[in-house]
Amino acid sequence: MAKFIFGVDIGGTSVKMGLFDEAGEMLEKWEIDTRKENAGENILPDIAASIKEKSEEKGIAVEDILGIGMGVPGPVTEDGRVLKCANLGWGIFSVADKVTELTGVKKVCVGNDANIAALGEQWRGGGRGFDSIVMVTLGTGVGGGVILNGKILTGATGAGGEIGHIMVNPKETRVCGCGKKGCLEQYSSATGLMRSAREAVAASDRPSMMREFEPEKLTGKEIFDAYKAKDEMATEVVEEFAEYLGLGLGQVAQVVNPQAFVIGGGVSKNGQCVADIVKEKFAKNVMFALKDTEFRLAELGNDAGMYGAVRMVLS
Amino acid sequence: MAKFIFGVDIGGTSVKMGLFDEAGEMLEKWEIDTRKENAGENILPDIAASIKEKSEEKGIAVEDILGIGMGVPGPVTEDGRVLKCANLGWGIFSVADKVTELTGVKKVCVGNDANIAALGEQWRGGGRGFDSIVMVTLGTGVGGGVILNGKILTGATGAGGEIGHIMVNPKETRVCGCGKKGCLEQYSSATGLMRSAREAVAASDRPSMMREFEPEKLTGKEIFDAYKAKDEMATEVVEEFAEYLGLGLGQVAQVVNPQAFVIGGGVSKNGQCVADIVKEKFAKNVMFALKDTEFRLAELGNDAGMYGAVRMVLS
Repeated sequence: MAKFIFGVDIGGTSVKMGLFDEAGEMLEKWEIDTRKENAGENILPDIAASIKEKSEEKGIAVEDILGIGMGVPGPVTEDGRVLKCANLGWGIFSVADKVTELTGVKKVCVGNDANIAALGEQWRGGGRGFDSIVMVTLGTGVGGGVILNGKILTGATGAGGEIGHIMVNPKETRVCGCGKKGCLEQYSSATGLMRSAREAVAASDRPSMMREFEPEKLTGKEIFDAYKAKDEMATEVVEEFAEYLGLGLGQVAQVVNPQAFVIGGGVSKNGQCVADIVKEKFAKNVMFALKDTEFRLAELGNDAGMYGAVRMVLS
Repeated sequence: MAKFIFGVDIGGTSVKMGLFDEAGEMLEKWEIDTRKENAGENILPDIAASIKEKSEEKGIAVEDILGIGMGVPGPVTEDGRVLKCANLGWGIFSVADKVTELTGVKKVCVGNDANIAALGEQWRGGGRGFDSIVMVTLGTGVGGGVILNGKILTGATGAGGEIGHIMVNPKETRVCGCGKKGCLEQYSSATGLMRSAREAVAASDRPSMMREFEPEKLTGKEIFDAYKAKDEMATEVVEEFAEYLGLGLGQVAQVVNPQAFVIGGGVSKNGQCVADIVKEKFAKNVMFALKDTEFRLAELGNDAGMYGAVRMVLS
């Protein structure tokens, strides 16, 4: 009898769900809303109901489900307890135990969303062929996940791989969302990149392709398009973004010496030039033994978390 | 029949050797010279001869030796190959295979010296009771070793835990021994601390207890003695040393989230106040989930490497 795995990635607005076969192939994917009201008490029951519904539709018995892998947006301990998920309204409890109770499925593996995305990319995406990678996701913030020998580095309090909050600029006066100052996320997230571009445009009258857009429409794509066209001001903006990212990833490499970095998130959609310039800046900031670290682009997009969730079940 | 392990820590001037029982207790220790001439070709034969001699003295047969653990001053891959040990004149070869050939002992485990010292401290020293620690050794340079779940984080090219070369000051103009600028090692090694103190003394006529010493006699001990006596200039010097170290260890914690840091090397001999001030600066530089990371002092001194070497054999 064929066996199945569910991969679930809980986000702040929707839950991504996938049905996988035991070889790790995705058979189907769908989404449900994340109902955050009442301290998020409906989220896990909604997921359990959706798993039940899909199982009935496909004629899958509970004993044919090898396991459920789940990603949550917050710190998670190795045994599947969340230590507060501000985004979902959750406190401290065992997600694994709760999901087993709701579904009858014994093997439930839970990880932090950034970490399982890293695991997914290492297993089936841009990090394929490497055992040890660091994934960095450039979106609203800068997320990170460290995979060593095919396993997530969770850390003592579930904060392993929180590389967005590495300090890269001791002179910064603005405060980051985390309460510190000078965090990598302030410069190298999509948000940080857009802010730098708007500031550069506003700071002078120098000509630039970036002036063709309303400030709020000047996103990563427009900035990188101008950079690719050798626009001088866009080049300065991208150089600064890459300097900070190269510096931060240099710190990471000095500690864990991965085989490769995998760059994901919206900014990475601008193509190989993103990996290239970050690698160039990185190489200036690391010891000789680290200079040949590979830089790859993520390939799984929003599915990475589901793949990583399934990988936890299968390993 | 009782079983034994040899723990060997190869340094640039001497090789520290220890005979351990299978419970990991040290029975005896001794040193031999490190003969570096002719590309260090005598080093391993000398060690093998010393192991043979000690075995004969104690009536230990080759089959009663569970294994030999070894530390070398350079990058080592997980399978025991060195990738150049500049200090010893060595190129690239398998230390493990060579030592097996010379001694007839099948199990030979080889690690980087800083990494095995970290493993020793985690097992039997200041990191006892924790599974995951980062050891930082403040001596001529700043060495590091990362232990996760009781295992050394070796890294893809043997450069895991090279935290002395994390960049902590983007404005630095002086070049570090590694060729980069602004490395942690430039400020927070014993050497860096002494340099800062000498510079502070030379830069003004302000009174300070540190003026009682000839510049070359102003070492960590004198600086910390003045700091403990609330000498103003010494306080500034120690604060700066700790600021950089707290910043660098903050970066490390954001990546690997250890349970504890263990501080070793000459500077740590100045007592708990070293751990206390570094923890204070560290806490300013990390996310909330990391602020309670423990700070301990190393306990095994120069024996840490031998203990770690033995631990590799026993695990």
